[in-house]
Amino acid sequence: MRNKARESNAGIALSLEDIVDRLGGTLRGPGKVLIKRVASLKNAGEGDISFLSNLRYRAVLKQSRASAVILSSDTPIVTTLPTVLCENPYLYFAEVAILLAPKVALSPGRHATATVEDDARVSPLARIDAGAYVGRRTKIAAGVIVGPGCKLGDDVSIGKGTRLHANVTIYEKCSIGQRGIVHSGAVIGADGFGLAQKDGRWLKIPQTGRVVIGDDVEIGANTAIDRGALDDTIIEDGVKLDNLIQVGHNVRIGAHTAIAGCVGIAGSAIIGRHCTIGGGAVVLGHIEIADKVHISAATLITKSIRSSGTYTGAFPFDEHGRWGRTAVAIKNLAEISVRVRELEKSASTSAVRSVDAATGTGRKGK
Amino acid sequence: MRNKARESNAGIALSLEDIVDRLGGTLRGPGKVLIKRVASLKNAGEGDISFLSNLRYRAVLKQSRASAVILSSDTPIVTTLPTVLCENPYLYFAEVAILLAPKVALSPGRHATATVEDDARVSPLARIDAGAYVGRRTKIAAGVIVGPGCKLGDDVSIGKGTRLHANVTIYEKCSIGQRGIVHSGAVIGADGFGLAQKDGRWLKIPQTGRVVIGDDVEIGANTAIDRGALDDTIIEDGVKLDNLIQVGHNVRIGAHTAIAGCVGIAGSAIIGRHCTIGGGAVVLGHIEIADKVHISAATLITKSIRSSGTYTGAFPFDEHGRWGRTAVAIKNLAEISVRVRELEKSASTSAVRSVDAATGTGRKGK
Amino acid sequence: MRNKARESNAGIALSLEDIVDRLGGTLRGPGKVLIKRVASLKNAGEGDISFLSNLRYRAVLKQSRASAVILSSDTPIVTTLPTVLCENPYLYFAEVAILLAPKVALSPGRHATATVEDDARVSPLARIDAGAYVGRRTKIAAGVIVGPGCKLGDDVSIGKGTRLHANVTIYEKCSIGQRGIVHSGAVIGADGFGLAQKDGRWLKIPQTGRVVIGDDVEIGANTAIDRGALDDTIIEDGVKLDNLIQVGHNVRIGAHTAIAGCVGIAGSAIIGRHCTIGGGAVVLGHIEIADKVHISAATLITKSIRSSGTYTGAFPFDEHGRWGRTAVAIKNLAEISVRVRELEKSASTSAVRSVDAATGTGRKGK
Repeated sequence: MRNKARESNAGIALSLEDIVDRLGGTLRGPGKVLIKRVASLKNAGEGDISFLSNLRYRAVLKQSRASAVILSSDTPIVTTLPTVLCENPYLYFAEVAILLAPKVALSPGRHATATVEDDARVSPLARIDAGAYVGRRTKIAAGVIVGPGCKLGDDVSIGKGTRLHANVTIYEKCSIGQRGIVHSGAVIGADGFGLAQKDGRWLKIPQTGRVVIGDDVEIGANTAIDRGALDDTIIEDGVKLDNLIQVGHNVRIGAHTAIAGCVGIAGSAIIGRHCTIGGGAVVLGHIEIADKVHISAATLITKSIRSSGTYTGAFPFDEHGRWGRTAVAIKNLAEISVRVRELEKSASTSAVRSVDAATGTGRKGK
Repeated sequence: MRNKARESNAGIALSLEDIVDRLGGTLRGPGKVLIKRVASLKNAGEGDISFLSNLRYRAVLKQSRASAVILSSDTPIVTTLPTVLCENPYLYFAEVAILLAPKVALSPGRHATATVEDDARVSPLARIDAGAYVGRRTKIAAGVIVGPGCKLGDDVSIGKGTRLHANVTIYEKCSIGQRGIVHSGAVIGADGFGLAQKDGRWLKIPQTGRVVIGDDVEIGANTAIDRGALDDTIIEDGVKLDNLIQVGHNVRIGAHTAIAGCVGIAGSAIIGRHCTIGGGAVVLGHIEIADKVHISAATLITKSIRSSGTYTGAFPFDEHGRWGRTAVAIKNLAEISVRVRELEKSASTSAVRSVDAATGTGRKGK
Repeated sequence: MRNKARESNAGIALSLEDIVDRLGGTLRGPGKVLIKRVASLKNAGEGDISFLSNLRYRAVLKQSRASAVILSSDTPIVTTLPTVLCENPYLYFAEVAILLAPKVALSPGRHATATVEDDARVSPLARIDAGAYVGRRTKIAAGVIVGPGCKLGDDVSIGKGTRLHANVTIYEKCSIGQRGIVHSGAVIGADGFGLAQKDGRWLKIPQTGRVVIGDDVEIGANTAIDRGALDDTIIEDGVKLDNLIQVGHNVRIGAHTAIAGCVGIAGSAIIGRHCTIGGGAVVLGHIEIADKVHISAATLITKSIRSSGTYTGAFPFDEHGRWGRTAVAIKNLAEISVRVRELEKSASTSAVRSVDAATGTGRKGK
């Protein structure tokens, strides 16, 4: 199972000079060296450019067979490899990666096995893949790829250049903006979990809102975004959602917020802009989270967060036996807390008392 | 991205009088006003009925352009809008929503691109959508909708009026009752996680049970319910499951229990009737939970719960720096607990001692 | 909703003697009895073999109508049923179940509604089901089943005897070894969550690695395994993944590790061999976990684990009111910890002081 990703990743080639011309940075060493791919320091070979942003990996750099490397302008590291110096090596690397990435050639058209309803409005510059279904009055803009097996309900709208990978489902009336990416298994627009109780049974409340997704949004594999109950569920521009995320009805996620895998966001929560949420976190319903809030992994957010900052709430793990003793103490913690207060009271009394004793004025001594 | 859900939600229209005739409640104001839709107070316009169940939102009511509003009989609020007074505004609203919801007109038949095995027994009153697959001997009752791309194995049974949205998968021999709703990406009947260890390797135990689902059950997007190992996994009548829930093999979920998104229920757990489980909670295997138990979000249930009530176990979140100090203290908690006990012992000794000192009978003083 | 799984599980039949001949163990009672199925003690009937590994269930054994039972060699239990004694009844039972399981008869060929690209290399001994899609240059070995609705990108490789259940998605260039099982809704090879920040927006880093999966791997329903950013995401031989698991880019999971449902593993985490991870656990990125580490359910792993053992970190649940008091105390825990230290200091001072008082040398007394 050796790593061969590198070999099969054929893109375009640029000289190191060309790259610096386009992206900035300072060149150290020969600029004619040809760069074809980005690669990790460990697996890089001829034609590969790599980067180092953490001094921890400097030993790997020494061993690397990369054709060039991206380093921080203020790095203390000396290397014989052709180098680009820049402010943020990771970002620079990302930009090189984008530059070199093979462009997916879009051959428009619709596959013979796809079903497109007569009154769907599909751009002749869009591609509809095998086994896809496009509902009535659904609009598919130019440059859109509807992957194999995708199912789009009636009155859906997909903006220019958006790509739906295989087996995506989009319910009726939902819309996605331009340049979006939706990964396989994602479900957009299923009914929100809206129930009212009547005589011990659950009454389903019709979910008549939509999901409205902005531009430049990426949605991970098997992520689910529910339609609004009455008003819409809204995902603003530039939001990035990882895999297996649950977004409840009437949630609003602010622009340029990024959310890691396995997060659950309950109904009507409002998440600010430029936030990040770590994997496995849970946000309760009807909560508001300010802009630029960072929530750590596996944290449960139970009330609104009004100011920017980082918030955490996870139980620290431990060796199992030690954890067991901690868990017992946790269950008694409120009581321990009371006992500490008692001790403090009696300590101050006892201090008084021993002073009294020493001076011969103790109550007991009377 | 303005909210236009309202405009595209065309249903039937009823006068306010008609509504009160059907659903009860007390009418205040003109009964002839025509109601076409339900809407939130904020987005309501002409023809919309809204509701207010929380006094917090009374300011929004003042601004609302709704044609009518549902209020609690004992509300202190005064409004000029036509009003229905009732006991439970949220429930009343749900019932109006159901009344006004556009009925999906089912045009039976099977799409040309669907595959239905010859010996499947599909009611002529059912609909099989594009790209669906229906296995051998599978029974599809009247009024059933099998959405586009659904895959039903052999010997499956789907009861009257149940709707499978697009891309649902149901493995062989599983059954769903009447009036069910299954959302896209749900997987019913995959193998349970049954493994035995042999010489450091895992032996897969054939999973020969089924999933048996009752009537009036709703299953959310991308939720997975595993088939039983030997006996069946059972979901009783009226159960409501949200999105991205994992139900292990041989679990039984009691009637009218509702479970929020991202919950994991391990194998052979037995959940009672009329329970609720909050988002992201985890229930360990072979546990029994009584009827009418409410489990809070993100709570881990490690042992059986024998009596009705609410159970919680989540770590309270905090500003990250403060949390870090708490986490350190948690790791030392068992020890802190011991130290408090020591202090208590020595405090009682010292109390004795200072009394002794004051009375001149201290041991040290001897 | 009575349990009828048993009735519809027709396999082969073996005498108890035959079974002991093949699998070992000691026979007690008549060896001619015919065994057709495995079943739970509770639901077993004629022709069924069951097992008991926990003395708790001995009452169920007394009531059982099984034709035979598997017990531990050192069991204190006496039964009139024909018995096989062995070291590990659960494992023995698993082996009998495998022996008796009906073999899926594979009828090779491709369904008329499947789409297979011209240059795909599909073994004539493989089966491609209804509505499946097989991309360019993709290799499908002998004995493979590609279930209905599966979508395989270009340059995918599926090893001998592997079964993909319905609606599995595999992105381009990913590979799966031999004898694998992939359940419905699983997504293999979606883009990793690789983002760099530029002026408050997220730049997507092209994900050019692959997912490389070894032999004898099982992947649960709706589980997602992301492709590597540069190098590959690697799942070694014999790994078992349950449902709804998220595996980030560049993760490596060591051979024979088993992971329960709803687990999230962030990018570049390295999990050892022969590990187990409980349901709902979260492993942060760039962490290394040694071989034979066992992580309990709902535990967050925030740093590398260097030695084998069991690790836990979940908050113990409690009745909600009690939990509320605990939660308040937790928020003050760092402070409580400080106060205990203060008490200890003052207790030692006060001990000195009361000794001083008793001996007439107290500072205050001067």
